[in-house]
Amino acid sequence: MKHVRVRKIDDMHVHLRQAGLLSKVLPHTAGQCARALVMPNTTPAVLTADDLVSYRTSIMDALGPDADFVPLMTFKVSPSTSPDGVRRLKDKGATAGKLYPEGVTTNSEDGVRDFKSLYPVYEAMQESGLVLCLHGEMPGVFSMDRERAFLSTLREIARDFPELRIVLEHATTADAVECVMGLPGNVAASLTVHHLYITLDDVLGDKLNPHAFCKPIAKRPEDRDALVEAATSGNPKFFLGSDSAPHLIENKECSCGAAGVYSAPVLLPALYELFEKHNRIEMLEPFTSQFGASFYGLPLNQSTVALIEDEWTVPDQYDGVRPFLAGKKMRWRVAS
Amino acid sequence: MKHVRVRKIDDMHVHLRQAGLLSKVLPHTAGQCARALVMPNTTPAVLTADDLVSYRTSIMDALGPDADFVPLMTFKVSPSTSPDGVRRLKDKGATAGKLYPEGVTTNSEDGVRDFKSLYPVYEAMQESGLVLCLHGEMPGVFSMDRERAFLSTLREIARDFPELRIVLEHATTADAVECVMGLPGNVAASLTVHHLYITLDDVLGDKLNPHAFCKPIAKRPEDRDALVEAATSGNPKFFLGSDSAPHLIENKECSCGAAGVYSAPVLLPALYELFEKHNRIEMLEPFTSQFGASFYGLPLNQSTVALIEDEWTVPDQYDGVRPFLAGKKMRWRVAS
Repeated sequence: MKHVRVRKIDDMHVHLRQAGLLSKVLPHTAGQCARALVMPNTTPAVLTADDLVSYRTSIMDALGPDADFVPLMTFKVSPSTSPDGVRRLKDKGATAGKLYPEGVTTNSEDGVRDFKSLYPVYEAMQESGLVLCLHGEMPGVFSMDRERAFLSTLREIARDFPELRIVLEHATTADAVECVMGLPGNVAASLTVHHLYITLDDVLGDKLNPHAFCKPIAKRPEDRDALVEAATSGNPKFFLGSDSAPHLIENKECSCGAAGVYSAPVLLPALYELFEKHNRIEMLEPFTSQFGASFYGLPLNQSTVALIEDEWTVPDQYDGVRPFLAGKKMRWRVAS
Repeated sequence: MKHVRVRKIDDMHVHLRQAGLLSKVLPHTAGQCARALVMPNTTPAVLTADDLVSYRTSIMDALGPDADFVPLMTFKVSPSTSPDGVRRLKDKGATAGKLYPEGVTTNSEDGVRDFKSLYPVYEAMQESGLVLCLHGEMPGVFSMDRERAFLSTLREIARDFPELRIVLEHATTADAVECVMGLPGNVAASLTVHHLYITLDDVLGDKLNPHAFCKPIAKRPEDRDALVEAATSGNPKFFLGSDSAPHLIENKECSCGAAGVYSAPVLLPALYELFEKHNRIEMLEPFTSQFGASFYGLPLNQSTVALIEDEWTVPDQYDGVRPFLAGKKMRWRVAS
């Protein structure tokens, strides 16, 4: 069977969850990724240096001693975050702070509404060399317009903190792609796998599909096309952040209505097929494993993983969590 | 307590279902409506004169002998419908034929893709004085654009059959309102209660809410505003067709993802509050009980029902089906 060996992924946006779920989902990420930026919207959230150390410890414990995987830790930039707190977080190894506007996604009820009130925090992050990761949706705006409505805030922060590295997370619109391309080099965007595949129609165009429901919601076909073009273009402002977000099936298929797509199990096979389809396979490694590291000031990761051309069907569930592309036949599988 | 007595509703679009579900949902419609146009997308569908007679019999049996309610029967306009069949359906008391484009909603897998191929059927319907009810969504188009993409088809049929009465069912967009207003008097639109209340954000703006998922999907706030303006304006081209569409909760809250909102239990209380809020209460009866009858060539219904100003909370379910506005406090209740 045909093999290709590729550099391991740096997944610059992942939800690893906690406790039992952490140990179930972590192997999928650790098997394909050299590093991953671990989101802090756990329950309770990662707010302080102690929270960060404790969460990293639980991840390392779940990994075991032989794992070839580095979690890049983040904290939640909340109305309670202080410049001193930022410095302590940096000292304990934080890579980035993640800002959630109020109420826009899972566990963001305590999020930010007044973005200007946090200027001292951005200042401290800029001085400490921490990256500011933005969930770029404006609260209170119609869902399909939330990301576009946030772009003026992104532009303002980027203008006022020219040395602060800022990532617009999980961009979903052609407007966001255009905005990020037009901003200086301190601004980049992460792109998920699922937003490169799906549109709003995958959520509700036929029957309602809770497993394609995520925040930001997938947009129009022309938006998806702009994301694919950005991902495969070789522009270093766009790199992978999967936003893999596992929820138990019972919390997706019910009136709980949890948002999130669990893409970790299919990251490399799904991306490999997509880049092949668009005749841009040479841009895959830059997108998955170079541009993110470069933006974050990290050395290239030196691990590789083998992909084998060996058809398989994505299972309906892994430990009670439905993966992205469940039921789909994939051409490539990751060597175990 | 304050009472108002209003003319009973003519609900010009309702799904009464079959068997056990029929007997559970019918009392809600029959209690508030003098007449209702009963949709034919049952399993199997109402395609022939025999089907129509049989379905009407099962509705009358479920009603019982003392009911003050008249079901207006429809048939499915399908690729197999013939002009002769149309005449037989008319002879057996059909009021309208309903055309479902292929795959756009529940039980429409056998729907129409070539609208022109049915011109002999429209001709027979025009001659027979039957109304053509259109599910106005173009298959294969992005969900948010399906209704707009259908409007050119509506314009063509209206132009080619100037004596055929045509209803664009459950209009959801400002574009559809504008289109229908600009067409001659043989074209009208029905409006649902839920599309006067909700937007896409009620489906997915926060957590995913399967109970607000319906076809056509609810659109943008400015679309809802245009529908409310049309409903309350006194323009006789716009009248109530609730599209009340009950599904068991287990078929909504799962990966079955059934489309439909069950509004029958709250029709009058919800509409009364809405028209009051917009200071157009004098337009309520024309919308619910005059314009539809007039378009369909029916005499005004002569029954009334009392609304009592007596706060109640819409229950979470009636016989396993979640009603529209479940959990909401309503000011008015229908006297039983």
